[in-house]
Amino acid sequence: MHETPKNLSSVAIAHACATQLAALRAKRPLVHNITNFVAMDISANVLLAIGASPAMVHAAEEVEEFTALADALVINTGTLSRPFADSMVLAARAAGAKGKPWVLDPVGAGATTFRNGVLRQLMQVRPAIIRGNASEIMALAQISGLTDEAARPKGVDSQHATPAAEHLAMALARHLACTVAATGEVDFVTDGARVLRLGNGDAVMTRVTALGCALSALCAAFAAVSGDHFAAAGAALAIYGIAGEMAAAATLGPGSFRTAFLDTLASIGEPEISTRLKVLP
Amino acid sequence: MHETPKNLSSVAIAHACATQLAALRAKRPLVHNITNFVAMDISANVLLAIGASPAMVHAAEEVEEFTALADALVINTGTLSRPFADSMVLAARAAGAKGKPWVLDPVGAGATTFRNGVLRQLMQVRPAIIRGNASEIMALAQISGLTDEAARPKGVDSQHATPAAEHLAMALARHLACTVAATGEVDFVTDGARVLRLGNGDAVMTRVTALGCALSALCAAFAAVSGDHFAAAGAALAIYGIAGEMAAAATLGPGSFRTAFLDTLASIGEPEISTRLKVLP
Amino acid sequence: MHETPKNLSSVAIAHACATQLAALRAKRPLVHNITNFVAMDISANVLLAIGASPAMVHAAEEVEEFTALADALVINTGTLSRPFADSMVLAARAAGAKGKPWVLDPVGAGATTFRNGVLRQLMQVRPAIIRGNASEIMALAQISGLTDEAARPKGVDSQHATPAAEHLAMALARHLACTVAATGEVDFVTDGARVLRLGNGDAVMTRVTALGCALSALCAAFAAVSGDHFAAAGAALAIYGIAGEMAAAATLGPGSFRTAFLDTLASIGEPEISTRLKVLP
Repeated sequence: MHETPKNLSSVAIAHACATQLAALRAKRPLVHNITNFVAMDISANVLLAIGASPAMVHAAEEVEEFTALADALVINTGTLSRPFADSMVLAARAAGAKGKPWVLDPVGAGATTFRNGVLRQLMQVRPAIIRGNASEIMALAQISGLTDEAARPKGVDSQHATPAAEHLAMALARHLACTVAATGEVDFVTDGARVLRLGNGDAVMTRVTALGCALSALCAAFAAVSGDHFAAAGAALAIYGIAGEMAAAATLGPGSFRTAFLDTLASIGEPEISTRLKVLP
Repeated sequence: MHETPKNLSSVAIAHACATQLAALRAKRPLVHNITNFVAMDISANVLLAIGASPAMVHAAEEVEEFTALADALVINTGTLSRPFADSMVLAARAAGAKGKPWVLDPVGAGATTFRNGVLRQLMQVRPAIIRGNASEIMALAQISGLTDEAARPKGVDSQHATPAAEHLAMALARHLACTVAATGEVDFVTDGARVLRLGNGDAVMTRVTALGCALSALCAAFAAVSGDHFAAAGAALAIYGIAGEMAAAATLGPGSFRTAFLDTLASIGEPEISTRLKVLP
Repeated sequence: MHETPKNLSSVAIAHACATQLAALRAKRPLVHNITNFVAMDISANVLLAIGASPAMVHAAEEVEEFTALADALVINTGTLSRPFADSMVLAARAAGAKGKPWVLDPVGAGATTFRNGVLRQLMQVRPAIIRGNASEIMALAQISGLTDEAARPKGVDSQHATPAAEHLAMALARHLACTVAATGEVDFVTDGARVLRLGNGDAVMTRVTALGCALSALCAAFAAVSGDHFAAAGAALAIYGIAGEMAAAATLGPGSFRTAFLDTLASIGEPEISTRLKVLP
């Protein structure tokens, strides 16, 4: 858990993020969203602002067929219902069969028996990336039976708010052979071998609804242009955090922040990324 | 109907509002929303801006279990459907059984037979607060059989746009032993014994969708920190109206108003409340 | 296909648009929306900003009854599901039976078998106006069997991006005896006999989600105040495009654009329309 990023200086990471952003804007990937009702508007606007193309499609009658048109899929368990859950499983399987990456955002993991059951089903369909907050990632690890003695953190890393979450994120990444991103004051990304900690962002981002959900959609957009899902998740988180702190600096509260954040996502490029990226040890 | 507020000067009311706001921000109550699709985004953002925590959960499979985690519940009948209606009844009953307050926002009361039937069912589960516009409150009273001779207003109070609505709001509050808030140009709150009329707000608030719905969510947040639901509703309406007129003064139209309104909700405190509160006779 | 608008100078069109806008604001029509989850918020806010009144009602149990209260209906096939599709057909039939105009926004036409089947059903219920982008209009024409030899464009009009779309829009308008609006860099409106091409708008409008959907809702609002649906669609598109380019000139990106756009819709009037309207040959 205390590995430092391997062979990756901050400069190289910034460069990789900017390269992926340029690739995203060139390809304009179509991201298929099966997401919650609160997140639909901001997810679509975040995808459009960055330069991707969103589609929200959730009917069981068409989700499988639609995965053929999309470049990536994001599944988000907020405002869950039985019909949405059924469509999520169908879409994730169809995406997998077509080799399209899909991202799982486990909103509310741990909150109810129903939600945990749906998440268990979804994890069996092998997401490329899981993006959640620390408690959701920990709940997923618990649902996956990873919270036994062996998986427990051996020490406390005072520098990071969630050493236990980092430990479980790595265990989960290894268990599912995927990338796991636990976001918060420090963003943590791991594929089970590599780790990346990022320190960008601003506290006001916690005062705007569904910004985490929209970040998961952004992870899908980056996964559509990068076969390295660890790098894709890292780029999404880095750019999101940098845009967040830039927008926060120019605004007065959560309302004006949301507006400025979308403007910033549309204009952000290599200069802002290379000067502002904060890779933490 | 012509009672003046008892033992409550405007200064004391302002102080009570500010105290409740501080309590809300200290507790950060989790508000469970079963609300309409148009209101979800703005309700969540209003709750986050003021300092509460929103959750939108509506599946029959999990609403009852979720009430254990939440501090209050708001049920809103906009964009109604049979599955949502069933979940509303389940959630309201579960909240009641656990002693958690719940708020009813009867969007579209009176519009269709289906909606009136669902509202009749919901009123039987004893909301703590009902918040609607004058015509919705009057429709609820009619659904409850309160529009007979005895319930009719005896005179016309020219100072208020809706003396009939005030009369029926009081009858409804007594009938259900709850607090009823009828909002409009003048906001009227009653628990059947006490009444409060507030004159804050701005006409632009009628040009932004779902601001009334989000106010109902705010009533739930305040009910989570105040056992006196009449006081809780009063605080929610007062602070909302004051933030509304502050934001309106600084903006050009409904788009910039919505942005500034969320900023203002995040920053508003005792000074603004005590200098701006308009308690009407 | 190369007709120029008959008997309509740019000045006369601007005047007609402004007259319809004044009529809309005077009548404040109630527009019944059965629309997608992404579009609900912005559609409601666009309708409120311009001066109309929105309602989102989609349950099969109440959509027919609700058409009696509404002045016009808009049906949008984004985020489609079986229950919504069933309600759309019920509502469209009920609106038709009551002589209320309804607008079809065929989001995602051509994307899946399910969606095409629902659109085929809906077209049989005679919309007053169809509003979509060029590829959606072309997909509808194909679904309607209009892409045979006779319907193919005979030449290429280099001045317009979508001569094929214009040709099929006219064929579709004649086939269904309705008005068809294909929007994009150039907006094209036809009732099969008359045509109108408009050049207002700004590229940033493609970076904000659901602005096309909200435009369809605006078409319904204008259809509620004008028996000439071709003129109604033209007015909606003209005013929307002008407000869009005005807002774009004052903003930095898609976030601030959306805010300014709603402000502009609320304040726009005859002076802006008459000085800015761009009718193309």
